[in-house]
This record gives sequence, C-alpha cells and structure tokens, in this order.
Amino acid sequence: MVGELVGIAQGSERYGIPQLTVRDIYITILASGDPCTILEEILKLNEDPRVHGVCLHLPPASLTSRVLNTIKPEKDVDGISDLNMGRLVRGDMSKGFVPPTASAVMELLERHEPPLTGKTVLLVGGEGPLGVALQCLIERSGMVALKSHGSSEVLQRQVCLCVCVCVCVCVCVCVCVCVCNVVRSSSHWLHEQQYKAWRLRSLKLQPLTPVPSDIEISRAQTPKPVDQLAEEIGLLPEELEAYGRTKAKVRLSMLDRLHAQPDGKYVLVAGITPTPLGEGKSTVTIGLVQALSAHLKLNSFACLRQPSQGPTFGVKGGAAGGGYAQVIPMEEFNLHLTGDIHAITAANNLVAAAIDARMLHEATQSDKALYNRLVPSVNGVRRFSPIQIARLRRLGIDKTDPGSLMPEEVSAFVRLDLDPSKVTWQRVVDTNDRFLRKITVGQASTEKGQMRETGFDIAVASEIMAILALADSLSDMKNRLARMVVGTSRSGQPVTAEDLGVSGALAVLMKDAIKPTLMQTLEGTPVFVHAGPFANIAHGNSSVLADKLALKLVGRNGFVVTEAGFGADIGMEKFFNIKCRASGLRPNVVVLVATVRALKMHGGGPNVSAGAPLPREYIDENLDLVAGGCRSNLRKQIQIAHLFGVPVVVALNVFKTDTQAEIDLVCQIAKECGASDAVPCHHWAQGGRGSLELAQAVNEATSRPNNFQFLYNLEIPIVEKIRTIAQKVYGADDIELSPEAKAKIDYYNQQGFGTLPICMAKTHLSLSHMPEKKGAPTGFILPIRDVRASIGAGFIYPLVGTMSTMPGLPTRPCFYDIDLDPVTEEITGLF
Amino acid sequence: MVGELVGIAQGSERYGIPQLTVRDIYITILASGDPCTILEEILKLNEDPRVHGVCLHLPPASLTSRVLNTIKPEKDVDGISDLNMGRLVRGDMSKGFVPPTASAVMELLERHEPPLTGKTVLLVGGEGPLGVALQCLIERSGMVALKSHGSSEVLQRQVCLCVCVCVCVCVCVCVCVCVCNVVRSSSHWLHEQQYKAWRLRSLKLQPLTPVPSDIEISRAQTPKPVDQLAEEIGLLPEELEAYGRTKAKVRLSMLDRLHAQPDGKYVLVAGITPTPLGEGKSTVTIGLVQALSAHLKLNSFACLRQPSQGPTFGVKGGAAGGGYAQVIPMEEFNLHLTGDIHAITAANNLVAAAIDARMLHEATQSDKALYNRLVPSVNGVRRFSPIQIARLRRLGIDKTDPGSLMPEEVSAFVRLDLDPSKVTWQRVVDTNDRFLRKITVGQASTEKGQMRETGFDIAVASEIMAILALADSLSDMKNRLARMVVGTSRSGQPVTAEDLGVSGALAVLMKDAIKPTLMQTLEGTPVFVHAGPFANIAHGNSSVLADKLALKLVGRNGFVVTEAGFGADIGMEKFFNIKCRASGLRPNVVVLVATVRALKMHGGGPNVSAGAPLPREYIDENLDLVAGGCRSNLRKQIQIAHLFGVPVVVALNVFKTDTQAEIDLVCQIAKECGASDAVPCHHWAQGGRGSLELAQAVNEATSRPNNFQFLYNLEIPIVEKIRTIAQKVYGADDIELSPEAKAKIDYYNQQGFGTLPICMAKTHLSLSHMPEKKGAPTGFILPIRDVRASIGAGFIYPLVGTMSTMPGLPTRPCFYDIDLDPVTEEITGLF
Repeated sequence: MVGELVGIAQGSERYGIPQLTVRDIYITILASGDPCTILEEILKLNEDPRVHGVCLHLPPASLTSRVLNTIKPEKDVDGISDLNMGRLVRGDMSKGFVPPTASAVMELLERHEPPLTGKTVLLVGGEGPLGVALQCLIERSGMVALKSHGSSEVLQRQVCLCVCVCVCVCVCVCVCVCVCNVVRSSSHWLHEQQYKAWRLRSLKLQPLTPVPSDIEISRAQTPKPVDQLAEEIGLLPEELEAYGRTKAKVRLSMLDRLHAQPDGKYVLVAGITPTPLGEGKSTVTIGLVQALSAHLKLNSFACLRQPSQGPTFGVKGGAAGGGYAQVIPMEEFNLHLTGDIHAITAANNLVAAAIDARMLHEATQSDKALYNRLVPSVNGVRRFSPIQIARLRRLGIDKTDPGSLMPEEVSAFVRLDLDPSKVTWQRVVDTNDRFLRKITVGQASTEKGQMRETGFDIAVASEIMAILALADSLSDMKNRLARMVVGTSRSGQPVTAEDLGVSGALAVLMKDAIKPTLMQTLEGTPVFVHAGPFANIAHGNSSVLADKLALKLVGRNGFVVTEAGFGADIGMEKFFNIKCRASGLRPNVVVLVATVRALKMHGGGPNVSAGAPLPREYIDENLDLVAGGCRSNLRKQIQIAHLFGVPVVVALNVFKTDTQAEIDLVCQIAKECGASDAVPCHHWAQGGRGSLELAQAVNEATSRPNNFQFLYNLEIPIVEKIRTIAQKVYGADDIELSPEAKAKIDYYNQQGFGTLPICMAKTHLSLSHMPEKKGAPTGFILPIRDVRASIGAGFIYPLVGTMSTMPGLPTRPCFYDIDLDPVTEEITGLF
Repeated sequence: MVGELVGIAQGSERYGIPQLTVRDIYITILASGDPCTILEEILKLNEDPRVHGVCLHLPPASLTSRVLNTIKPEKDVDGISDLNMGRLVRGDMSKGFVPPTASAVMELLERHEPPLTGKTVLLVGGEGPLGVALQCLIERSGMVALKSHGSSEVLQRQVCLCVCVCVCVCVCVCVCVCVCNVVRSSSHWLHEQQYKAWRLRSLKLQPLTPVPSDIEISRAQTPKPVDQLAEEIGLLPEELEAYGRTKAKVRLSMLDRLHAQPDGKYVLVAGITPTPLGEGKSTVTIGLVQALSAHLKLNSFACLRQPSQGPTFGVKGGAAGGGYAQVIPMEEFNLHLTGDIHAITAANNLVAAAIDARMLHEATQSDKALYNRLVPSVNGVRRFSPIQIARLRRLGIDKTDPGSLMPEEVSAFVRLDLDPSKVTWQRVVDTNDRFLRKITVGQASTEKGQMRETGFDIAVASEIMAILALADSLSDMKNRLARMVVGTSRSGQPVTAEDLGVSGALAVLMKDAIKPTLMQTLEGTPVFVHAGPFANIAHGNSSVLADKLALKLVGRNGFVVTEAGFGADIGMEKFFNIKCRASGLRPNVVVLVATVRALKMHGGGPNVSAGAPLPREYIDENLDLVAGGCRSNLRKQIQIAHLFGVPVVVALNVFKTDTQAEIDLVCQIAKECGASDAVPCHHWAQGGRGSLELAQAVNEATSRPNNFQFLYNLEIPIVEKIRTIAQKVYGADDIELSPEAKAKIDYYNQQGFGTLPICMAKTHLSLSHMPEKKGAPTGFILPIRDVRASIGAGFIYPLVGTMSTMPGLPTRPCFYDIDLDPVTEEITGLF
C-alpha cells in the first residue's frame, strides 16, 4: 500500500483563495492494500485534519460498498461515495464532488463550438455509477444523453441520432488528470466555509404569557443536533467531540486552522452592583446573542461560565439563563455537562492527597529510605523521572545520575519539608457541604498521629478552575499547573505541584477539560460553556480559550458576548486587568446590566433579601428612588468602564412591574452619565426579539472610538496596585493593610511574585467593603485583612473581609422538588 | 401540518417477520408546513425511536436539499435523500430504500410476460432523480432504458425502438400505493439487523516481541469510530450517545426494541485465589472475546467493571487488560470515561451534605420553624412535595393538607432525629486519600459545635455504585436509591435517602450513569464498561444492565463474557447469589483463571508480594509446587463452581517463564478435578489468536448440561446463610459471631431486612479469613466481626476482619511517571 502526501499550492490564486500554504491542503492517494488495511487507512485519513482529500486508486474489486462509504463525504474527492453520487443525481452541487472523469468529459463537451445545447450525446461504455453521473451532468447542461449498451445493431442506430459520442473507457488516465482540479475545488470549499456568514437555522420561539418555568420552556424546545449546529457555524467534523446529542467539546486545533481569520468583535456583559437576587447578566448575554444571531443574522457566540453543581441542589436552582433567554437543554447545562468540574475536583484532590501522603512519608522515613523509594532500582537501573529532574534543577543540582548525589543533595531532594501549618491547598467537592468548611484529617491509626486541620472548598473555588479559565493552550495550562504553590516549607520556600511530582498527572486529568463545550440557546444560536472560577477569590470570568475560539468562528463582522461575574467593579475590573492581560484580547463594548429593582435599592430603597417578600417600593412606581440609583451606582459603574477606555451600553433588564416612566428615566440618565446608549430589554419574556434594540445599540457602539488601557502597570508595587483599584474603582480614600497582609506582601515580593496582577476578594453587594453601603459610597478606607496568591493561575488576591468558599444547604434545599420520571426521563424541579 | 402515526402490522408474516406488533412499526407522514417547522418536525421524528419511517408529502418547492438530507437515511422510506439515491445508483440495495414510484413501475415491468430482458423501455416524463432511479433499476434488470425528453419528433423515433413505454406522471398516486410496501421493507430491514451474525470489521493485530508497554500497544492501534462499531453490532443510531470518538453510552430503550430477541450465552470469568499481583482475569476476559469475535466470528461482548481512578495514580496503573488483550483507548478507560463514577461521587456526597445539614437544622430550630421552612407558603399556598408525602405515608400519616397535621405529627414529620453516632453514610472521593479515612467534620464556627467523627471511602465503595451495578431499569435504580438507609434515629428507626428528601435529586444525578458505555478491544470487538463496585464490602461485579443489553445484542448464538472480582470464592459466589438473583440471568459456563505463579504459591511456594522481586521458585520449573496448588486451591475453586451446577473451563494464563511441563500438568490435573476442559492462553502476547483454544473450549462447554441453582434460599435466617457460605464455599468448620454482629443481625431481622442475600466482606488472598493461609485451608472457624447492610443495593454484608475502604498513596506513586505531551496530546506512564 502506498500512502503518499502531496502538497498542492500552486494555482490557488486563480481561485481567489487567500494565504493558501502547502500546509493547508493535502491529498492522500491510496493505491492498494488488503480490505482491512484499506479500511483502517481510510479511517485514519478521515480523522487526520491535515488530509483534505482521499483518492482511491484501487482495483474495482477493492471498491466495495464498505470502502466507498467509509470515506468521509467531505474528503471523497473522487465523488464515488453514495452520498456524493446522490447529490450529483439530484443536482445539488453546493457540497460534495463530481467524479473527475465526468468533470473532464463535461469540460470537453462544454468547450465544443458551436455549443451542443439540445443535441444528443451518445455514451458508449459508460456503465455503472460513472455513466449515471455523466448522463445527469449532460442532461443538466441542456444536451440529451443516450446510453449505448454495446449491441452493435442498436449502437449503429443510436449513432445516427447523435452529434457527439463519448467513449468512457480510459478512466484511470482521467482520474490522474483531474486530481488537481478536485483538490483545488476542495480547498476552495474548505475556505469558503471559514469566512462566510453562517447559514444558521434558528429555532422558532413562540413565547407564552405568563412565562412558564425555565425547565418547561427548555423542554418545549427541541435543540438542534450539536453536529448540525457545528456544521452551521463552520466547524469541521473532526474538530468536534460529541457528548450525547446536544453538547460537544471543540478541539483546540481549530485555532490553528483559523489562525489567519480576523477576530470578531468582543463584547463584555457586566452589571451594576446587584441585589442579593441577581440582576440577570446571564439572561441579557443570552438574549443579546439570540437577537444578534437569530434576528439580525449576524454571527454571534455567547461564552458562559459553567455553573457549580452544588448550588443547583441548594438554593439557587439552574444557571442557564431564564425565561426565553436560556441555554438548552438546561438540565445538561446545570448537571455534569461534559465533566470539566469533575476533572478539576479529581485533579485538585490528587494534589491534596499527595501533600498529606508526602508529609506522612517524610515524617516516618529516613532520607535514605525516602530516596530509595523515590528513585527505585528498576531491573537494576536507577533513574530520575523528568519531573524529578525538574525539581533537581530548581534546587540548583545539575546532576542526572541518582548515584552521584551528595547526602545533603539527597536530603534537599527528598524532603519538601512542608510546614503543616502553612499548607494553603484545600480539598474540594462540588457539593454544598458546610460541614467540610473546617475539618481535622488523619485521625485513623494508619496515619500515625499526623492529624491536621484543613477544609474543603466548593470545586469551582479550586485554583485549577482559575487556571482552566486563563490558560491559552494545553502547554500553558500544564505549566501553570506545575507552578501552583501548595504551601511553604519550614525554611520558607514555596512548594509547588511539580515538587510533589504530580503536575504531569494533573495535565492528564485535565486534557479534555481544556476543550470548550458547545451548546445552543433557545433560538438555536451557539454558546460556549467553559470554566467558572469563583468571582471573589478568583476572577469570575469564563475561559480565555472559549472566547478565542468563538472570536475566530464568528469572523470579522461577528460578535462574541462574554459575561463577567458580580458587579462591574469586580467582574469587569478583573476581566480587563487579569483576563485580557492573559489573553491579549481587547474588548470593543461593555454592556452594563441594570434593573429598576437594583437602582431603587441604590437610590435608598429598603433592604432586599432572598426569601423575603419584596417591599412595596420595588413594586410600585418610584421615580425618585430610580433616579437616585442611576446618579450613584449606575453613574459610577459607567465611569469605571470608561477608566479602561471602553464604550458602555446600558441594558435595562425589564421586569413586569417596571413602569414606562421608570424605564425612560433610567435610559435618559444613563445617557447623561456617558453611556453610548441605554435601552430596555425584554428577552426574558420575548427571547431574542425582546433584545433587538440592545443588539442594534451594541452593533452601533462597536463603531465608537475605543482606547482600551489597563488600569495599572504590573511593574508597580503590589500595594500600589491594590490602592489604585481601591481608589479609582471602588472610590475609597485609601487602603489599610493588616500586619498579616503586609508580611504576606513582603513574602510575595521576595519570592518574585510581585509583578502579578491583583484579584480583589471583596463583597459584590457594595462598591465598598461594607455590603450594606449601597449607591456609590465615598470617604472610606478599604481594609486589607490578608493577602493570598494563586501562583499557577497568576494573581495575588487580597482579602477584604471574610469570603465563604463553601456554601451550605438551607433547611429545605431545592432538591426536595427535583425529580426524574423514570419512564419519560423528564426532570422536574430544576426551576 | 399534519403529523400522523399509522401502525402497520398486517402482512408482516408474508415477509417472515416474527412477533411483529403494531408497537414495532410506525410511519409518519409529513404533509405540509413552513420550512422551519418541517425541519424541526423531521429532527424530532429522527430522534423518536417509535417512528421507523418518514414520508414527505410536500410540494416540490418544500423539498429542499436541506429537508431531504435532514431525514435520517434509515427513516427515508421515500428513498429521496442523497445517500439513498446514491446507493440506488451504485446498485447497493442492502441498505436504504427505493423510491416507491420506481418500485411500482419495476413491479409492473417485471410481471410482464414474456419477460422484457434485453428489450428497450422508453421513459417519458421521468425527469430528475426519479427518472435516474428508474433508469438504473431498469438497466439492472437487464432491460435497456431510453429516456424521452418530450420533443415529439425525437419521441416518435424513440417509440419505434422500444417495446414498452413508461409514463411517469402521476407520482402522488404511486406514493400512496407504495407506502405500505416501503414500510414493510423498512420493518424487514430493521428486523434483519437484529438477528444476524455481526458484520464486524476486526482490527488487525501484529504482536511484537518483546511485548511493548500497555499504553504503547493501545496507542499503536487506531480504534474504529464508536458509531461504526455500534452499527456493526446492530445498534440503531438513536440508541447511541457518543462521548468523543471512541466511547458512547447506549440507551436502555434498546432492551425494549429487542425484548423478543433470545439471549446469548452467558460466560463468567472468575479466578483461583490470586497472589497480591493479580492473575489476569481481565486480560483473559478480553482475550476470550477477541478470539470469539475476531477469529471464530461468533458475536461476543465483554462486560467489564469501570476501574476507580484513584489507584490509577497510586500503585496500580491501568486496568484495561494488558498486552495484546486490552480495551482501547486505555487512557479513556482508565480516566474519566463517561463520568459515571463522578456522578456517583456527586450523588453520594449530596446525601452526606444533606445528613449533616439536616442534623444541624434540627438541632437549632423548633418543630414549628422547621415545619414552616420544610413546607413553606409559596404565593400564599402551602403544599407537600411528592417526596414529603411519601415520608408521611411511611409515618402512617394519611394527610395531604399541611394545615391539618397535629403537633405530634408535625414533630414526627420534621424530625428525622438521626443519632450522630449511628450515621453509617460516609462521604466518598475517587482519589487514594488515606488522610480522609477518619476525620472530624463541622469544626467551623458556622456549624455551631455540631462536630462529628466520620470518614471518606473511595468512590467505588459507595452503596450507589452497588446500586448502579444491580439496578435493572431507571425506575428500579430510583427505588433503590430512595430505600438506602443512611443511619438510625435515636428511637432506632432506619432513616432513608427518601426521608432526607434527596432521592429524586439522586436519580437526576444518576440518569446518564445508568447507560452502559460501549468501547472496543484491541481487535475492534465490542465491550461494555459499566459499574465497578468494591469486591469486598460490595459484590464486585459489573452491571446487570450491561450484561442484559449485551445478551440481546449478541443474539442466540453469541457470547457475553463478564468478569467477577477477586477469587471465585468471593466474586463468583456473589455473582451467583446476588447478581444473578437480581438479574434473573443464568450463566452457562464459568471460566476459572489460574496462573502457574499462583498455583505454586498455593502449593507451598514462598511469599509473593508487590514491589519485591519474585523468588526463584516462581521463575524456574517446579512441578511439585504446581501440582500442590492444583490439588488444593484449583480443585476447591472448581468444586465451588460445581456447587452452583455450572460447568467450568480452566484458563491457564501463561507467563513467559512457564514451562511446557508445568502447563501440561495444570491442564491434566484440572480435568481430573472435574473441569470440562483446561487450556493454556497466550492472549497477553498474541491477542485473540492466543486464546483460540479457550474460545473453542468455552463454545464446547456451553453444550454441556447446566443445572444452575442458588447456594441458599433467601428465606433461611441470616446466620444460616452466612454459615452455608462459610462451610460450603470457604471450607470453614463453622462461624463465630461477635456480640456486635449478633445485635446487628437481630436489628436487621426486626427491620424486615432478614431475607436479603449475603455479601461477605472477606480477604481475597485466602479461601479463609487469614490471608497467609494458601491452598485450601480447613479446620478453621470464620469469625464475623460485625454485620452491616446496604439496603438500597439489597444485601447484608458481614465483616470478616477489617476491610480498608480507602487506599493510600505510596512514597512514590505512579503519578511520577504520568505525563502529557502538550503538542501530540500523547499520555505516557499509564503503564
């Protein structure tokens, strides 16, 4: 068997294909082989993204039905698979390929002078599918095809009827002649796919009044098969890994394929300071892409965070948007999805198990015993593993022979010497399990008295989640995982995951999690769901990779709408200063979500809390409260966005109790405060149609001048970075560091972590550190209680007050209502 | 738009279709609608397993390319999709459908007397795809087709040439006439698929010497796309949920479709008492199906347990078989797979969080406060949720109005009154984390001093895993989850998951885990991977559902090979007494795996332990030790299988140090001891070819008489059941119960759990409870230290000695060698 790669680049300019390099187009010719080998070879070629066409030069006996139909139709440049043959017969040549022989014959016939239209063409010897193909093509060109069947008497009579005779014998020659043409057309076809406006089939919505529950709305809509959605937005089949029918992971190789494609426009959805009930940033995000894609027919992608499963069974219910602006199927979105959080949990807890086991082994073994076990003799040979050599390098030991280490080098190598009181790594679980907040581990007799106080966080608070969100490639993620600092040695040195020898295993556990998950909105428009780091101790934004993939897929005139957690003072500030720094991407517009409810609260309305009925002020019209909120919190949040030089569109998420006067007032003041535009949104009740005005405003705002800049330079001292955020963003007079915070900052400076960006851990319920201070507080000093660091993720996080990293279950968790019908498999109670 | 379901059953006997009921065949006729609605309707019909055909009665303008090619080709009974048209043109009618009009015309032509062979048929008005189709069919019948194009002059001349003229005009009439035919042929086609021997394309193996590492062998083989494998074994596309390219979940609806299909033969692989290194039951299982399917061409399926991820990073490495008998890709098998264990972890820990939160809430709230929160007023209405009504029923309270409960009823309802010292539910994590064996939880101030000692088990030790393995439907699983007992109230009543209100949520979390995962062996034969309960505290067998699905898929003459954990005294005994009781399935043959190494150990050889080099006795020939092992342990294990009335084939898993004399001796003695046959296996070095002799022996043994019987009747007292196992299986003189064990047995009897089967928790390293006693010990009393119960899973488990339910990490865990190449994405170090 001959498998040969032929790069064909010449001549591409004739077809107007830009930037076509040899790397882009390959065709493989399969010349012989036994049936099994041929099938295996075809399967490999099908999956190989570098191969764009497969030619079969095989004896007829080898061209079995199985062989012909194993080739992916999009790589069948011979046009001999059943699907391509059917397309030709039906006359749909927008996809698929014409057999080269048939193409060659047609080219000759069409060059005939005078044209043969209306004339009869006799086909001699063109039996089988090729003959059928030729006949179809001839007839479609306006000629009449007549097939000869070899009987000389009939043939003689037939020849009299015809003006042209085609003899289809020497098929092989034609194939060779035509391969190049077909390859060019295939490359053309591939490139066509990449740049076009999507031919997206949107799903129709027929919103009901009153709006049913989220799960009822989700269930009433039949999602498109995810492979169909992927095809519509220009993904190649080999770039997709389906997980069931409605979700799929997208391979990062897509970024290579589309590296030359210009990015789309990048829109951030942030919000004013919310009430504890939330103001609907996710629904605005989804409503906006539904409007852009399904109604304005502009390519657009929403990039969302994956929600933690814990709160789904606690108080929160689903997080897939709501009403007629949702990601579907919402139960898939809210439950295991494609397992990314499970992978994070597994990786995080492997680190934790490795830490405690290592401390136990170091406490109970001599240097020599440790060394003999860590670098064992296998079949008489002792060898360091690559990860151990990396540790030796960090220790300044430039040796590779285990026998050559001096005793003090052995000791330095085998003893991480972690200080149990300075282990910062916590275990995680994706369950609201408050009893794990503070625990003592190691109480079994097998652990020989090595007890230690520690705790569990909710899985999304793991540093590994923050890394997943910030990594921009597999190797970047792997490096970040290796750099994670899990604690400090007794001599004050940071101890990393790589020191524990576990970083390779972490990358293995996370290898699929790094691929974003493709889903769809209620209107059938694409959504990436990827990563969901905590918005307080981490940066609260979805992944860099999802945004990058989406920006390539939407193309130059498209939109990627991504969401930042919490209010703009937290989520947006971190989006700009942390995420945009990591990604190198620059946002075009900020959509600032406000509600009349939250504005009234900021304008002086009474307390709003979950579970309690809303006070009357929030139900009746009250223009004074609205105006107060607009002129304080809304104005301030607009100003914060302008600090970064990005235009702002205010999206007023309309509730049914809002009056027209209230709506008008918000829009008017927002514009006075510098918003490019301010519009009401009705996506919850109406879907994309209810967000059309917002979509137009966003589209318009992207043409505004945009002078993006970071708020601070990474090179300034940590304290200055914190002060800048506190003063410019929060409106504080100054900051005040606890002695502990000061000591930590000194330590981080000394360890070389001083140039990392800052990830403030502050309440989201106020611009200040005091949740009860609404509006735009001034005249306060921001206290920095402690400072911590996520070195792998790459940020320092000062703690302003205490942050809970493990939610609890209420007396009546929402799992009381969650149920599964074992016959229909329908889920109830997920909101 | 008219969507109409028409059941067509009559006439099926004409086509030799057995047991065809109206329920089996539906065809849906789409008559009109706008383009979007038509597409959505087709997508729904594609996914609906009750619909076997879709007819499009649409105006030509609606028959767009998109519409035609959205219908699944296997439901396109009009034969108008491109794929079906291409099949027709190429003449491959084994799949797909012929357009009904064309069929009708052909039927008329073929009835013509005298036959029209060699004659010319003139087609008038048959333009487009239909004309092409007819032309192909006519020519394939040996007639000559001539197409007319309407010009009267040409027509006239053509008519002279022909003996028969077909006028293709009234297409609609023909469609109606022919629908029935097509439906019949479609049902025929569906049924054909179900009963045939598979057309399995096996993957070729070219074994190397020396045998490379498992991961190298796995990587060198390209697995078939899982959808192709599924098609080969007769699964319908809508029964498959792909997870990436190489694994897929299979929907349980398949069991309904094939309910009338006779089961295949059911083979259990068990082993003699192993050394701590394991004797290769998994490789024998995989080698056997490779031999059966790929070499003997007999439909066969392996059903394997999903391994815990914890040990993969500890000492064990992969568990996908080994050498040339593996499941591929082995890294997928060993890592997250399709997330089932993650789902179990989430479900298990939700129960744990609910227990502790509930105890806290009960400890800190009055009856009234609890009641108000548990049954809140929503928009002025108070209502019990269904799960709360179930609890009321169990309490004997037959009320549905929350206002009508008496104070003592309220108290009984709101207080589970769990005794903290009698909570038996543990948390789980799928990591070898020894420091979690015994912990104290609830030490944060937010938990108000409600501390409690508890622990974590490895995830596969969760009762939920045992339930997954034993459930035979979604509703059975849901009922078992609800019945799980998590602890005892202060008044001594068992408290269940349903009492906690969490059982519906558990079913939701487990709804995908219940579907078995399809993968393949190195030779491309099918494997189900599903469930992997601990083999000591649970029953150590893969799932009932995987076995049931596989038995239907292989059909009457096929084989399902399933594996039981540990030695036959444990895994096989539980397979018969627990799993077969739950499933109702009856095994045909037991394959008993032995190695010369383990036999030598039982014959008196020195100690074998992991990590230490093997003593010389195990490397050099020693026929005395081999004979000793055969006459003790092997003989006893064969006798145990015969207790159940099932024939035994001994499979000697050959190592390269085994001599021919040793191999011959084992086979000879095994047969003397009553084995139907005894053969050496070389699957590790040679793949299926190395297990051919075993495959033939197993095939032969299935024709032996089989008088399956359970070892004990469920109605006898718990103590008698335990004694029967101890005496008949282990060879003990008697049992001895600790006072604790006695008290527990009394308690279980009193609670009505006395008729559950017994799941012994005993060491697997000896037939006795003393791991160091090899061979076939006698003259011992089996001590029963304690007795526990898994009520949801449905067994009582007596503890013989202490069982570790949480492995630890060694000083140098295997994660030191595990790494990922970020460019090629290749994994190293997973053995």
